[in-house]
Amino acid sequence: MLIVLKKGCTEAQQDRIVELIRRRDLEALPVSGPTRTAVCVLGNKGPLEDAGFAHLEGVHEVIRVTRPYKLVSREVQPESSVVSVGNVAIGGAHRPVVMAGPCSVEEADRTIAIAHAAREAGAAVLRGGAFKPRTSPYSFQGLGEEGLEILACARRETGLPVVSEVIDASSARLGARYLDALQIGARNMQNYALLRVIGRMGLPILLKRGLSATLEEWLMAAEYLLAEGTSQVLLCERGIRTFATHSRNTLDLNVVPLARKMSHLPVLVDPSHGVGKRDRVRPLARAALASGAHGLMLEVHTHPDTAYSDAQQTIDVETFEGVVKDASILSQLDPLFGP
Amino acid sequence: MLIVLKKGCTEAQQDRIVELIRRRDLEALPVSGPTRTAVCVLGNKGPLEDAGFAHLEGVHEVIRVTRPYKLVSREVQPESSVVSVGNVAIGGAHRPVVMAGPCSVEEADRTIAIAHAAREAGAAVLRGGAFKPRTSPYSFQGLGEEGLEILACARRETGLPVVSEVIDASSARLGARYLDALQIGARNMQNYALLRVIGRMGLPILLKRGLSATLEEWLMAAEYLLAEGTSQVLLCERGIRTFATHSRNTLDLNVVPLARKMSHLPVLVDPSHGVGKRDRVRPLARAALASGAHGLMLEVHTHPDTAYSDAQQTIDVETFEGVVKDASILSQLDPLFGP
Amino acid sequence: MLIVLKKGCTEAQQDRIVELIRRRDLEALPVSGPTRTAVCVLGNKGPLEDAGFAHLEGVHEVIRVTRPYKLVSREVQPESSVVSVGNVAIGGAHRPVVMAGPCSVEEADRTIAIAHAAREAGAAVLRGGAFKPRTSPYSFQGLGEEGLEILACARRETGLPVVSEVIDASSARLGARYLDALQIGARNMQNYALLRVIGRMGLPILLKRGLSATLEEWLMAAEYLLAEGTSQVLLCERGIRTFATHSRNTLDLNVVPLARKMSHLPVLVDPSHGVGKRDRVRPLARAALASGAHGLMLEVHTHPDTAYSDAQQTIDVETFEGVVKDASILSQLDPLFGP
Amino acid sequence: MLIVLKKGCTEAQQDRIVELIRRRDLEALPVSGPTRTAVCVLGNKGPLEDAGFAHLEGVHEVIRVTRPYKLVSREVQPESSVVSVGNVAIGGAHRPVVMAGPCSVEEADRTIAIAHAAREAGAAVLRGGAFKPRTSPYSFQGLGEEGLEILACARRETGLPVVSEVIDASSARLGARYLDALQIGARNMQNYALLRVIGRMGLPILLKRGLSATLEEWLMAAEYLLAEGTSQVLLCERGIRTFATHSRNTLDLNVVPLARKMSHLPVLVDPSHGVGKRDRVRPLARAALASGAHGLMLEVHTHPDTAYSDAQQTIDVETFEGVVKDASILSQLDPLFGP
Repeated sequence: MLIVLKKGCTEAQQDRIVELIRRRDLEALPVSGPTRTAVCVLGNKGPLEDAGFAHLEGVHEVIRVTRPYKLVSREVQPESSVVSVGNVAIGGAHRPVVMAGPCSVEEADRTIAIAHAAREAGAAVLRGGAFKPRTSPYSFQGLGEEGLEILACARRETGLPVVSEVIDASSARLGARYLDALQIGARNMQNYALLRVIGRMGLPILLKRGLSATLEEWLMAAEYLLAEGTSQVLLCERGIRTFATHSRNTLDLNVVPLARKMSHLPVLVDPSHGVGKRDRVRPLARAALASGAHGLMLEVHTHPDTAYSDAQQTIDVETFEGVVKDASILSQLDPLFGP
Repeated sequence: MLIVLKKGCTEAQQDRIVELIRRRDLEALPVSGPTRTAVCVLGNKGPLEDAGFAHLEGVHEVIRVTRPYKLVSREVQPESSVVSVGNVAIGGAHRPVVMAGPCSVEEADRTIAIAHAAREAGAAVLRGGAFKPRTSPYSFQGLGEEGLEILACARRETGLPVVSEVIDASSARLGARYLDALQIGARNMQNYALLRVIGRMGLPILLKRGLSATLEEWLMAAEYLLAEGTSQVLLCERGIRTFATHSRNTLDLNVVPLARKMSHLPVLVDPSHGVGKRDRVRPLARAALASGAHGLMLEVHTHPDTAYSDAQQTIDVETFEGVVKDASILSQLDPLFGP
Repeated sequence: MLIVLKKGCTEAQQDRIVELIRRRDLEALPVSGPTRTAVCVLGNKGPLEDAGFAHLEGVHEVIRVTRPYKLVSREVQPESSVVSVGNVAIGGAHRPVVMAGPCSVEEADRTIAIAHAAREAGAAVLRGGAFKPRTSPYSFQGLGEEGLEILACARRETGLPVVSEVIDASSARLGARYLDALQIGARNMQNYALLRVIGRMGLPILLKRGLSATLEEWLMAAEYLLAEGTSQVLLCERGIRTFATHSRNTLDLNVVPLARKMSHLPVLVDPSHGVGKRDRVRPLARAALASGAHGLMLEVHTHPDTAYSDAQQTIDVETFEGVVKDASILSQLDPLFGP
Repeated sequence: MLIVLKKGCTEAQQDRIVELIRRRDLEALPVSGPTRTAVCVLGNKGPLEDAGFAHLEGVHEVIRVTRPYKLVSREVQPESSVVSVGNVAIGGAHRPVVMAGPCSVEEADRTIAIAHAAREAGAAVLRGGAFKPRTSPYSFQGLGEEGLEILACARRETGLPVVSEVIDASSARLGARYLDALQIGARNMQNYALLRVIGRMGLPILLKRGLSATLEEWLMAAEYLLAEGTSQVLLCERGIRTFATHSRNTLDLNVVPLARKMSHLPVLVDPSHGVGKRDRVRPLARAALASGAHGLMLEVHTHPDTAYSDAQQTIDVETFEGVVKDASILSQLDPLFGP
């Protein structure tokens, strides 16, 4: 249940509302949006009688929320959220951003060269994996903290903010020292213990959709983050697992317009993991933006064939320039989504 | 195996080649393309020794085809095919076409009104179902031959060529009398008996991808058509079945660039069945064109809420105009695919 | 809607009820079960007012059927159906039957040898494909009518009734001359034109579940058959298409107890196509019977490695004897399903 | 690569082999099985030249392992592993075990009552969730350490060893104090950071298959555990995510015989989560055992309708007694799997 407050609601009135909620053994979570403040009522097992709340002083309206997620929904916040990664604003009416970089962070020279090339070509954020969750325990697991240091160094050299995946509480604490945004990978989307930890760290979070996650489960994972107090969450579609084997995963662009409709959070797309083949990344990147994505996350390398991981889906700088050019043409399309 | 003939190969030389193939209990199928003629060797169980053929007079080259499809592949025909539906050319470098109309053919007045509105808005082909394969035997099954007559009448009134689904040999024979192209629906994609029948009818065929068809199975279904002698086949992606329930099907745009790479046949996309929700058809139509589709098939109605079937995914004329406008902007994107 | 008649309902009363239904532009289909007669009301678009019917003479009860299928459901017929293939009774409390034989019918000698071996080992029905729907137009398509003659000959030699797949109206007419039951393959489960044709032919029909068919779609396909007047339908689960590649398909035994609960039709399982690997057919055959199947359909061959098709999933006679022995042990399990 | 040692290989010889491996910048992991000792060579990027090793003193044989997993495979250890949970031996030729208990640990009285009833009925291990990974942050998240204390108390009362899920390093450390085995849930199967932590804790681990995990990914997750030094791992199939909605998940019994063939680890099945409906748990439990499972994990409650979570799939004690009776009948089936 959402209790929407009047514009002139005083602090004392709000405190009184919160107190009454807590007396009923429920949790009260005030949420301040740009145009209105609401109090989320959490912890109820069944439907709540609202009579008690609708007539309190300072209450504008009581909304029953039937969906299982609340804080991520447009019911709680009708306006689109804008998330800032470093100095880059993502979401709402901002023009689509492109995050680019190697799958794995590589030695400093190469990584910085890639960062320069990506920035020249139009990237707004540098991505690169320092902690790699690999299917095999015997595969290269990333450079760890050394990788984070290299990313931070690349930021100093190029001015690009940096984002990288974290995989547990300890890598998250390290990441928070070096990064502008923390990424939760698809395999950890339902690692709720980790979500709780990083939701409290204050940094923007890029939350990838799990390989077999429904839209609802994805939004609920974001809800875990918002319930910890952050409002800086980016959703990122990266392909789902289906019977189709012609692509590495099945990039599900069907979800983009609906995620934008259901949630105020920005929605990005990662076509590199989605389609998984270098020669098809650019057409799918175009399609992602055309479907309404607020941005792209791409694996880009100055020498793709020598990438430490995911070489088969990493594009070269020239192809990446093409994607940025495409984005500019696609920005002429009428906006289809609300405020 | 493909035996590519020299440009100056005489008829007598070609006959000799065909005769030698047949003597080995194999089938020989000459295929004439715009720039070269090849002879497909069919019916072999295992790998073929090619020594015998490579040195025959008139032979330019012998190509071993390891893929299970031959006639649909770019190995046999490197140039993109152009398929003509009425006077509308589809494929290759032709600009994307839009096929539009009601899910089911409705009474003559309404259908003609829709056809006029669709043409005004930019549709190039009229679509509408006369024979509807419905999940329930008790649902409306389409107007049958009366529906075909109405489509033919709408063509007279508007000049738009017409396409409609056929479901068995008898509806195909009827369809051939009235239609400019025959559609095979997703549920019949592997109805090989039907494919054999309509492959011989001489009309262009629009072949929808089955709900759980791999790219290879889809191309093999097209191969059944081409093996019967036609070369006028359009592929049409319309969504696959996955665990995701937020869309009616999962429109699989990952397949578009790969289908274009593997096959010379034009590739269309049907976002209406793919995403299955009216408010998301336009974003997915954009994405389909951006991914490289040669055209769209859309359910459009002057009064969508009263459509006989599929109302929830049928867009109105105003939205359709938006799609046509989008297509024009998207045509500024660099072409990514070959000749 | 179902109008259940009183036991003493006269013919005149029943006629009156049917007449009143038809006056309302609805279809009336009387269905006589062993313990009661009901009249199905078909053709309504929305909910029906039942007041008019509940008080007619001869009416025991009016049941609103909210499910889309009627004739296949236990609401219409609570008692389990028993289907007779030749002299073999399948379903209800009859002990599980095993259908066995080669994937494709082979030359007469071999086929008869397989039939003898299968019968010795405990098979009750002989299976074998004469019309093979193959993914490739260039693969062996079955012996056609010659194959049917060989099956009929094997029946004369062994006394086993024979079942084989039909793929269009013409093969169905041929099949009806030679076979004891007609099979509809997974790829044709939603070939409704074919279902309508064979539903009228009077022979028992084995209906395989489609590769991506929901339980509801499968039951609706059976409803097409029953709506044409037959009551002799066997359902057969044969594996669905999922992301999992360790088995050819994913045999879905979850569906067996539910299909038995929802429908009165017998439910068989085909583990050969389901798991698709010879060494795992026996464990899955056991599991199928344990889950409640009324019988099995198995690919069995005296020399599996030389089978014309599906060799990798065809078991030898010794393994088949093991399955029959397993079935006997499993028959000691308490029955879990109703009458 | 695996270097299998001769029976009489001395410690000095083994040390020399290990040293030579490490000099090549590879990792050497000696594995002692009941009948032979082998040294796993890990860390190679590409194929290894084996010439150097095959002729060393003490080496019996060098096996190239082409599969990505090593320690879990029957190539490394041909004999089936037996895992001991408390005093209960699971795997190999031991008769199937049944683990039973509530989805969530409930208050002490109720939990102990369930434990007593489960033991009477034939359960060998008590299960119950203290840390519940829930889709919603607002759902009941389990009793935490209090739940673990209740489980330990139930063990004292009944003698049943106890197993429960852990979700991060901190709950794992707590769990290790109270439990006989730690469970990794489906959503954490690829939480590699967690796998590394608990692989070192010395307790038996029950590893559930992820919702969209291939067999290879599941075995690789187990490989993470074994690579940390434990050999006490139980695999547990619990249903995968497919298009089918008639069951909560699609219990994939196809995987059971193959997992048993590929790996020496015991394979359990959880039909409660797999099929997800109370009335179908018993038929699927039967099928699971028939397919070759070494045991079952079941949600059982003395008052299922009042269970704190998963009530719809929790069976009552009477049904559970039926499952145990079924298991006894099924134990008459011939063993199909190796030593």
